[in-house]
Amino acid sequence: MAEKIYGLHAVRAVLLRSPQRVQRLWLQQGRQDARVVELEALAGSQRIGIERVQPSRLQGWVGEVAHQGVVADIEPLQPWREDDLLSALGAAESSAAPLVLALDGVQDPHNLGACLRTADACGVLAVVVPRDRAATLNAAARKVAAGAAETTPVVTVTNLSRTLALLKDAGLWMVGADGEAELQASAVDLTGPRCLVMGAEGTGLRALTRRHCDWLVSLPNLGAVESLNVSVATGMLLYEALRQRGISRTQQD
Amino acid sequence: MAEKIYGLHAVRAVLLRSPQRVQRLWLQQGRQDARVVELEALAGSQRIGIERVQPSRLQGWVGEVAHQGVVADIEPLQPWREDDLLSALGAAESSAAPLVLALDGVQDPHNLGACLRTADACGVLAVVVPRDRAATLNAAARKVAAGAAETTPVVTVTNLSRTLALLKDAGLWMVGADGEAELQASAVDLTGPRCLVMGAEGTGLRALTRRHCDWLVSLPNLGAVESLNVSVATGMLLYEALRQRGISRTQQD
Repeated sequence: MAEKIYGLHAVRAVLLRSPQRVQRLWLQQGRQDARVVELEALAGSQRIGIERVQPSRLQGWVGEVAHQGVVADIEPLQPWREDDLLSALGAAESSAAPLVLALDGVQDPHNLGACLRTADACGVLAVVVPRDRAATLNAAARKVAAGAAETTPVVTVTNLSRTLALLKDAGLWMVGADGEAELQASAVDLTGPRCLVMGAEGTGLRALTRRHCDWLVSLPNLGAVESLNVSVATGMLLYEALRQRGISRTQQD
Repeated sequence: MAEKIYGLHAVRAVLLRSPQRVQRLWLQQGRQDARVVELEALAGSQRIGIERVQPSRLQGWVGEVAHQGVVADIEPLQPWREDDLLSALGAAESSAAPLVLALDGVQDPHNLGACLRTADACGVLAVVVPRDRAATLNAAARKVAAGAAETTPVVTVTNLSRTLALLKDAGLWMVGADGEAELQASAVDLTGPRCLVMGAEGTGLRALTRRHCDWLVSLPNLGAVESLNVSVATGMLLYEALRQRGISRTQQD
């Protein structure tokens, strides 16, 4: 059963990142602006069927939202197992330098959803979370993720420490965020294949997780509040990685 | 009526940033580690009274929290008016290069609280919000701010556009976050006196606000989600400013 996604930005992202998941593209009759024409070309190059329909039909599917005349049927994102992540890493071109985000026991589904939304915006390959004593991708988390749950896979693992070791074997270097670290994030090379590891709210990284980290880096904390919110800290660290890589919206768009 | 704040980090931040607000420092009997000794020296240099008390007394005041043997009586933070902000800017040393955060109509109190928490962690002088059609600093916002509302002033103004003009006159350059901007945040000099301006959820900066901006900068947006959460975008932009300034926790701590 296909899911429907809508909007120029979301449909374009899936056409670029996972064209094999797109089953059909629905465009509003009469829309011929440059961004719609680009989507048509993208879908055409992947031999994806395109149909022009009345706006009422688009609205019937997705409701009163800003669909911008663009809806796509996509295959639902299947949950990834650890093996899927390792295969994806094996398949990634060496030039791509994959980024993986690991959350070491984030408790609040809102924070999980917010981290997923940010990870998606920053082109993260997948988000790894432990099965036990951690928030799961429930309805609340999906809502906060604002659609990111349909495009960025969450990999739930039984033993985070073991998975981190496997990711290291797969060539990823581990960068843990730690309020007490001496090293600044900008002092560490984040341009290669990296797994960014964030601690739980309040308690931070567990000792076992910390031992897997090649670097521990701190983020700004000049204020009265004990620590940054985990989704904000995730955003800062991912921002730093993308800054170092010279990747921006405008360069990729 | 004094408020009580607790914990090494929070008390230290207020002693450094607003010593005149600290009325008394309460330390747990027997605690003599380096961080407590440093607080004693800080308070002593400001002629702030220090008393050693039993842990049960500290707990009676602040409840079952991780007070780390440190509680301070502080004068509550008075709401700032526009004049207070302008005075504070006039008083700031030129070397300090103040950072102000303006939120152009953020609607969700949770987002306001999250922005305030991040602003506090990044040493922002004050957060400016419009009085109408915007979230106010209610109990929900204060809770999400996690104590930042007691240390980073929120300035509620009747006409944001007029306030931005006054901040420009006071020497601040305006940097607006805009998903469509060509310029990356890292391409703009954020080391001088700056006001960072964030748009509302979904709608972004208003046209009138946009016109006040000396630069419009974009943040990473490679994913399927239409935009970053405003508190995460705020965190990224403040991170970039602090990175350029070479300010880290460890250098300031």
